[in-house]
Amino acid sequence: MTARFDTIALTGKPGDPHVEDSLGALARHLVGLGRRVLADPSIDGMVNEPRVENVPLDELLASADLMVAIGGDGTMLYATRLVAAHDIPLLGINRGRLGFLADIGPREMIERVDQMLAGRFVAEKRQMLTAELECGGETVSASALNDVVVQKRDPGRMMDLETSIDGVYVNTHGGDGLVIATPTGSTAYALSGGGPIIYPGTDALVMVPICPHTLSDRPLVVPGDKTIAVSLVATEDSGSEVSCDGHSLAVIHPGDHLIVRRAERRATLLHPEDYDYFRILRSKLHWGRGKHGRGGRE
Amino acid sequence: MTARFDTIALTGKPGDPHVEDSLGALARHLVGLGRRVLADPSIDGMVNEPRVENVPLDELLASADLMVAIGGDGTMLYATRLVAAHDIPLLGINRGRLGFLADIGPREMIERVDQMLAGRFVAEKRQMLTAELECGGETVSASALNDVVVQKRDPGRMMDLETSIDGVYVNTHGGDGLVIATPTGSTAYALSGGGPIIYPGTDALVMVPICPHTLSDRPLVVPGDKTIAVSLVATEDSGSEVSCDGHSLAVIHPGDHLIVRRAERRATLLHPEDYDYFRILRSKLHWGRGKHGRGGRE
Amino acid sequence: MTARFDTIALTGKPGDPHVEDSLGALARHLVGLGRRVLADPSIDGMVNEPRVENVPLDELLASADLMVAIGGDGTMLYATRLVAAHDIPLLGINRGRLGFLADIGPREMIERVDQMLAGRFVAEKRQMLTAELECGGETVSASALNDVVVQKRDPGRMMDLETSIDGVYVNTHGGDGLVIATPTGSTAYALSGGGPIIYPGTDALVMVPICPHTLSDRPLVVPGDKTIAVSLVATEDSGSEVSCDGHSLAVIHPGDHLIVRRAERRATLLHPEDYDYFRILRSKLHWGRGKHGRGGRE
Amino acid sequence: MTARFDTIALTGKPGDPHVEDSLGALARHLVGLGRRVLADPSIDGMVNEPRVENVPLDELLASADLMVAIGGDGTMLYATRLVAAHDIPLLGINRGRLGFLADIGPREMIERVDQMLAGRFVAEKRQMLTAELECGGETVSASALNDVVVQKRDPGRMMDLETSIDGVYVNTHGGDGLVIATPTGSTAYALSGGGPIIYPGTDALVMVPICPHTLSDRPLVVPGDKTIAVSLVATEDSGSEVSCDGHSLAVIHPGDHLIVRRAERRATLLHPEDYDYFRILRSKLHWGRGKHGRGGRE
Repeated sequence: MTARFDTIALTGKPGDPHVEDSLGALARHLVGLGRRVLADPSIDGMVNEPRVENVPLDELLASADLMVAIGGDGTMLYATRLVAAHDIPLLGINRGRLGFLADIGPREMIERVDQMLAGRFVAEKRQMLTAELECGGETVSASALNDVVVQKRDPGRMMDLETSIDGVYVNTHGGDGLVIATPTGSTAYALSGGGPIIYPGTDALVMVPICPHTLSDRPLVVPGDKTIAVSLVATEDSGSEVSCDGHSLAVIHPGDHLIVRRAERRATLLHPEDYDYFRILRSKLHWGRGKHGRGGRE
Repeated sequence: MTARFDTIALTGKPGDPHVEDSLGALARHLVGLGRRVLADPSIDGMVNEPRVENVPLDELLASADLMVAIGGDGTMLYATRLVAAHDIPLLGINRGRLGFLADIGPREMIERVDQMLAGRFVAEKRQMLTAELECGGETVSASALNDVVVQKRDPGRMMDLETSIDGVYVNTHGGDGLVIATPTGSTAYALSGGGPIIYPGTDALVMVPICPHTLSDRPLVVPGDKTIAVSLVATEDSGSEVSCDGHSLAVIHPGDHLIVRRAERRATLLHPEDYDYFRILRSKLHWGRGKHGRGGRE
Repeated sequence: MTARFDTIALTGKPGDPHVEDSLGALARHLVGLGRRVLADPSIDGMVNEPRVENVPLDELLASADLMVAIGGDGTMLYATRLVAAHDIPLLGINRGRLGFLADIGPREMIERVDQMLAGRFVAEKRQMLTAELECGGETVSASALNDVVVQKRDPGRMMDLETSIDGVYVNTHGGDGLVIATPTGSTAYALSGGGPIIYPGTDALVMVPICPHTLSDRPLVVPGDKTIAVSLVATEDSGSEVSCDGHSLAVIHPGDHLIVRRAERRATLLHPEDYDYFRILRSKLHWGRGKHGRGGRE
Repeated sequence: MTARFDTIALTGKPGDPHVEDSLGALARHLVGLGRRVLADPSIDGMVNEPRVENVPLDELLASADLMVAIGGDGTMLYATRLVAAHDIPLLGINRGRLGFLADIGPREMIERVDQMLAGRFVAEKRQMLTAELECGGETVSASALNDVVVQKRDPGRMMDLETSIDGVYVNTHGGDGLVIATPTGSTAYALSGGGPIIYPGTDALVMVPICPHTLSDRPLVVPGDKTIAVSLVATEDSGSEVSCDGHSLAVIHPGDHLIVRRAERRATLLHPEDYDYFRILRSKLHWGRGKHGRGGRE
């Protein structure tokens, strides 16, 4: 990857006035530096700087050397969906609260962006997933940076999901569903389901059953090159939903096959040179000696 | 209980300069109000106020109408051991960080104590446990505000503990040990072992297996009037230890019987009138909307 | 309660041939003993014994001295909904696999029923819950033996639930939902969510957050006489569902108030004289020394 | 590796009569096939077959082409310690209950061994760990197939462990200790501590805090080539113990540095051709549809 970012695309969380302020400030700064700045159509009208170009999305993706996303980690997931297939690196600015993915604060934004434009950054490749669901002769597919989730829609019932890895039967999981997460996604929904934290560079995926009926049905970490197949065992349910990074892909029915594997392309995240994953982890998870007293034992 | 606290005993965490400052300030204030102030021998020399009386422990316990403990929750456990058998209410001042038991901050200490001396307080009775271990014809016993713990000493091995409730066999728990906790202790060691939070007024105890070999060997909540018996199944271990609120009671051997039941006396904690258990819980456990983001899903 | 069960109502899991066999055998046996036997309309046509009376449900509930349900724990929940308001005791026969509620096996059915008709049984009262949802001026309500569950319908998003106990704010739980369970329900869905096992006689309820966003948002056990209020914080969601024992009560919207408290009536379960809750627990959870090896450490 | 196993070493769980029977039967069979059979000195006198040679351990390790261990997974860990440095493949026969490592049953022993001698087997390389503890200028070290554990000895107190990965500070873990496990060890002690199951071929290690004080201090999976450093923060404790596969290595004191990394050599396990890791997992963890009912929700 080149450190020359001549054309920079901007996106952000729509409707957030803090994001709007940061978008305007960043756009003025970048235009002032002589860069070409493009606005994602989804933030149309939010960037208060006339020299920013509002171009169609396909033109934006064909031209941009870098995308900057301003918002939370949800905005970063959105931006990743846009740029991943185009190999455009992504930089995340948070709105004030540190994110796992949007790891630059709004107050340090200009200084950090200047460092990055000067070539002082770390480019990190993050594994993504591809989900393919065959149903009725057709195949729908999507990619995910965090996770592919199969989850029941009917609150009153359990469902049974049959899983296999590289064609070998693993288990029939009774419960509310299954999360298949990348290391990046291990700190998102999978963590709420009891999964481990997985260091981003680990060549692994994790399968986390959601509210499993069997208490020993625990999270399973597998090598990153494994192909995971999931099918729904016939039930009286109203159907279960497959989602990628929280976006619905399709409803899965008994007989359908969901195939989840590592995507060919990886996302590229740009970080400041002093990027420290564990510092973010400690901050997000409130780790740190003496600060999280459980009490009664000190 | 009367709201007249004429004779007030002080204790605190030995060796902590912040505690020393608070002890001195509080002692001067109380003496100035005409109260008789006694210092626990364990803080001998820490209370910098000549009018404070250094008396033997038995005299202190015979005379005090109230004990004030300054330190963390560990200091409160220590103070509870002193006063519980003498029905002396206990007030906890923390050193700066809120505790589950020491719930008054050092800066509000004087104001809060004045309110309490004026009768504006909540007196809360907290359930305690009694542990009796019969070994070789003799019986040793102790009481606990938080928990009675049976734990292996030999890191390399598991042990098997057989439990029964009111004489009915429950389970043989393979693992590192067992915590039997009161509602007060549910937020201490039992919580680290995966136990639930139990609201202090609940008439219940909880048995939490430590690192259980069987994944379905989950915490078990039982009515507060149950008698729990624990015995060690014969192993090659070097023995397991029984402790009450973190203090060793004895080593338990195969054939010994540990009996844990609710103590006859309860501890009396004094709180400010606006005491709110859930506020403490939210603070200690870092709850609260928007503050504890796991990220990647917002 | 009298031990005279002159009129006995039967119900069972519809469509299960094993249940059909057991229903027929039991009906013939009871009729042969001179008892009046009524069939629940929901099993119309399943009881192959002409002397059994098919009566409308209201007549059945007005006449029955005992209901026998044959099936799994789901069938027992169904039967409890029928009989709880009518103070009719309930006896559960399982289809071959021991249930928490249906604790008599099909092979011992006749012998056990005879013992019970001879007055040799244990009658156990089980706490139930009442859920009331006020929405738009109207109130819908239902009762539950196991649990009241609030759960998001939209797999991709989290929701925030604000809870209070007896009017005191507890927490704003971000995640997939909340289970409020009785001791009976503690071994059902609440257990999958990480809740403790609660001995049936314990005077307590448990609130178990489902896949909580905050890792310290743990199960909370409260006294059985507490009133729990739940409301949905405004979100962009498609709405969340309230269910009682797995049956949908209503969709909850921001501004609606769900009130959960102990029901006035309790369910009455009949057990054999040698009933042992812990034996069922050990069997259902695969406890037991030496049988559940985790391996690698023995 | 060759499929010619001319010289076969035997070991087993001492003092177990079932193991003695199997050792005798296997020895007679192998001698009858013309193989040279050596007995590990630790089972001296257990192999009832005069043609078996009792040789010193170093001679055994210099000569053996294969070691067969009869017992549980603990016996397999013992055997691995013997053979790992000598590149001798290892075959495990269990005593009747399937193990994660000893995956051949006693009744199929002869048939399975014959298949293996005929070259019909799967040779699986399993990652091991090396633990080095520098204390007082000296270094002690050991290897482990399952895990390296740092654990407090004093039941009443917590300890603080500071960890870093490849020199980058991770966290200060307050609690009872830390398990660093291979994928093989992920189903042993690490699983009891709440760690994930890791498929054996995954290039990863897992760090599992034991009874952590901070509830968000969750298991962390890292790439297999990372170097993990652990040091004890100064406390009043009586010291903490480092163990490898359950065997004590040394006591760790504040200031000592424990370094854990992947060992250069890997263990070689032989399995039957139809070896299926997930089948063993399902069996050991009591997975499987319909068999592990939690009840009340079906």
